[in-house]
Amino acid sequence: MKIAIDAMGGDYAPLEVVKGVELARDQYPDLEFQLYGQLDKVKPLVKNDERIELIQSDEVIEMGEEPVKAVMKKKNSSLDMAAKSVKDKKADAFFSAGNTGAILAAGLFIIGRIKGIDRPGLATTLPIVNDPDHDNFVMLDVGANAESKLFNLYQYAFMGKYYAENVRHIENPRIGLLNNGTESDKGDELHKAANEMLSKDKNLNFIGNVESRELLNGAADVVVTDGFTGNAALKAVEGTALSLLTVIKSEIMSGGVKSKFGALMLKPTFKKIAKEMDYSQYGGAVLMGTKAPVVKAHGSSKANTIKNTIFQIKTMIDSKIIDDVVSYFDSHADEMQQIKQNAKNK
Amino acid sequence: MKIAIDAMGGDYAPLEVVKGVELARDQYPDLEFQLYGQLDKVKPLVKNDERIELIQSDEVIEMGEEPVKAVMKKKNSSLDMAAKSVKDKKADAFFSAGNTGAILAAGLFIIGRIKGIDRPGLATTLPIVNDPDHDNFVMLDVGANAESKLFNLYQYAFMGKYYAENVRHIENPRIGLLNNGTESDKGDELHKAANEMLSKDKNLNFIGNVESRELLNGAADVVVTDGFTGNAALKAVEGTALSLLTVIKSEIMSGGVKSKFGALMLKPTFKKIAKEMDYSQYGGAVLMGTKAPVVKAHGSSKANTIKNTIFQIKTMIDSKIIDDVVSYFDSHADEMQQIKQNAKNK
Repeated sequence: MKIAIDAMGGDYAPLEVVKGVELARDQYPDLEFQLYGQLDKVKPLVKNDERIELIQSDEVIEMGEEPVKAVMKKKNSSLDMAAKSVKDKKADAFFSAGNTGAILAAGLFIIGRIKGIDRPGLATTLPIVNDPDHDNFVMLDVGANAESKLFNLYQYAFMGKYYAENVRHIENPRIGLLNNGTESDKGDELHKAANEMLSKDKNLNFIGNVESRELLNGAADVVVTDGFTGNAALKAVEGTALSLLTVIKSEIMSGGVKSKFGALMLKPTFKKIAKEMDYSQYGGAVLMGTKAPVVKAHGSSKANTIKNTIFQIKTMIDSKIIDDVVSYFDSHADEMQQIKQNAKNK
Repeated sequence: MKIAIDAMGGDYAPLEVVKGVELARDQYPDLEFQLYGQLDKVKPLVKNDERIELIQSDEVIEMGEEPVKAVMKKKNSSLDMAAKSVKDKKADAFFSAGNTGAILAAGLFIIGRIKGIDRPGLATTLPIVNDPDHDNFVMLDVGANAESKLFNLYQYAFMGKYYAENVRHIENPRIGLLNNGTESDKGDELHKAANEMLSKDKNLNFIGNVESRELLNGAADVVVTDGFTGNAALKAVEGTALSLLTVIKSEIMSGGVKSKFGALMLKPTFKKIAKEMDYSQYGGAVLMGTKAPVVKAHGSSKANTIKNTIFQIKTMIDSKIIDDVVSYFDSHADEMQQIKQNAKNK
């Protein structure tokens, strides 16, 4: 299997991308790579080009660029060319740590949606920290769409279910709807209707509404949310964890000898916690609903995260998740059309 | 000044409410209290009834009750009677640690909205942890309304501004709009329009969009948000902080002698951090936009939080924040009508 990679995307590109690809190549003998980038920069970084095809791309889509415009215009960018390779079936999956909006646009407009899926949703995996029975959960949409409709939320549930099953190996995942209260009548009109619609579907193990307060405590295996709220919740979780760790660090450093000595004693414990909280172990965010895996790692990713993300992509390909999603939406096409029509009439 | 208090609201009511009121009474000689509750339970808890009027209420609104129905039906509840007392101008402010929905309903339907304010919004104060120049920020609406319209967001900005100025003593507070990106064109239609509307107003120190990742880092002094997103962001912040602290505690406890010894050395540092993060020091959440202060403390509040919340209410009364809000909305009534009309036409 072959992965098309944008070598120029990310704060530490191309160096850390190349290092991550080589780590993954050494670990997974069945993987091949296409590395798109400015070869004068990329080539000198590659120690060994075994199973790594280097392909020249003249342009780079920068972090701050207007995404859709950039993807439409820069056909010779590393990002566009990697996506085009997947569209042309010359590679099985697309990966970049670059401009998020541009990655989503390339997924939608170059690689394309699975038939029957209205709006792909961005899925991220986060750790569950206080529940020995659950290790992580999947949340989507965390920002592919600023506006989500009822039918989109319904479809996110299925995409999340397949992701949790195929990639996280969670059997019959518990699906929750992010809402402002756990009772079934909570929320705005959209979320009230979504709760009703998800409850009715026998193909989903829907456990009802969940609140963002309980996410890290294992409230659900799949958290369905509209892209606007999901984005705010995800960033609040990330920001709070980071702010808290920063404050602990700075208070320890300014706390005198006793404090520093204590921290030294606690070093293995802190390391364990940091490892538990580090969600880069789960790879990147996945645009679920496209014809091939489209995966975006955090802009600040270093080699190890790149490697983890490649493992995640390998798992997606190995598990045939795309085939599963395609076949579900195909075999339920009439039912989906009916549900979409009903959703519109509300 | 006199505060009407629901003695039966909260997980530890009436004991902790009574204790908190006595603490506040001892500290603030200008405060008087009306304590509404089942006197057979409340009276034995009061050590000294100086400046505390005890008033019998036969009913109690429970935590799980449907709020609006409960407020409409249980006229003899401690919650309703305390609110009624404020409406009848026998007390200056209302306070409960009980059923949030019922507190909001009592604020809206018993005490009533300030003329010209469409939808009161629930404002909470959270700590800023990594910025020496800023100590805390105000966020609203965090859940009074499941659905917020453009004009509501606009009015939240003013209510937040007055709260930050009068109660948090922040001069010319920086007002930010919670959105899914910092660029001005980010967000769904509602938030794009809100950014434009807030930017245009010369009476607001609007600094643009803020992301929930930066809330605790001091992105703004007032964070304006729709009630659904604000609720999700607030609960994500609370939940993440709590989960993280729980995991640190449990890892330390299971980390052996060295780990426990380290924790002992770090005790003063941990205490300082916990104090910095403890937002109960700022009191409770305030329903901004009602004719008198309506303040809700967390259900799990103990005596000290009750006392802090009473101090917060005292500051609201002392600073004449309600008069300021009334007079702003009164003197800008025509302008507000015009802006509301424009918002509707969008």
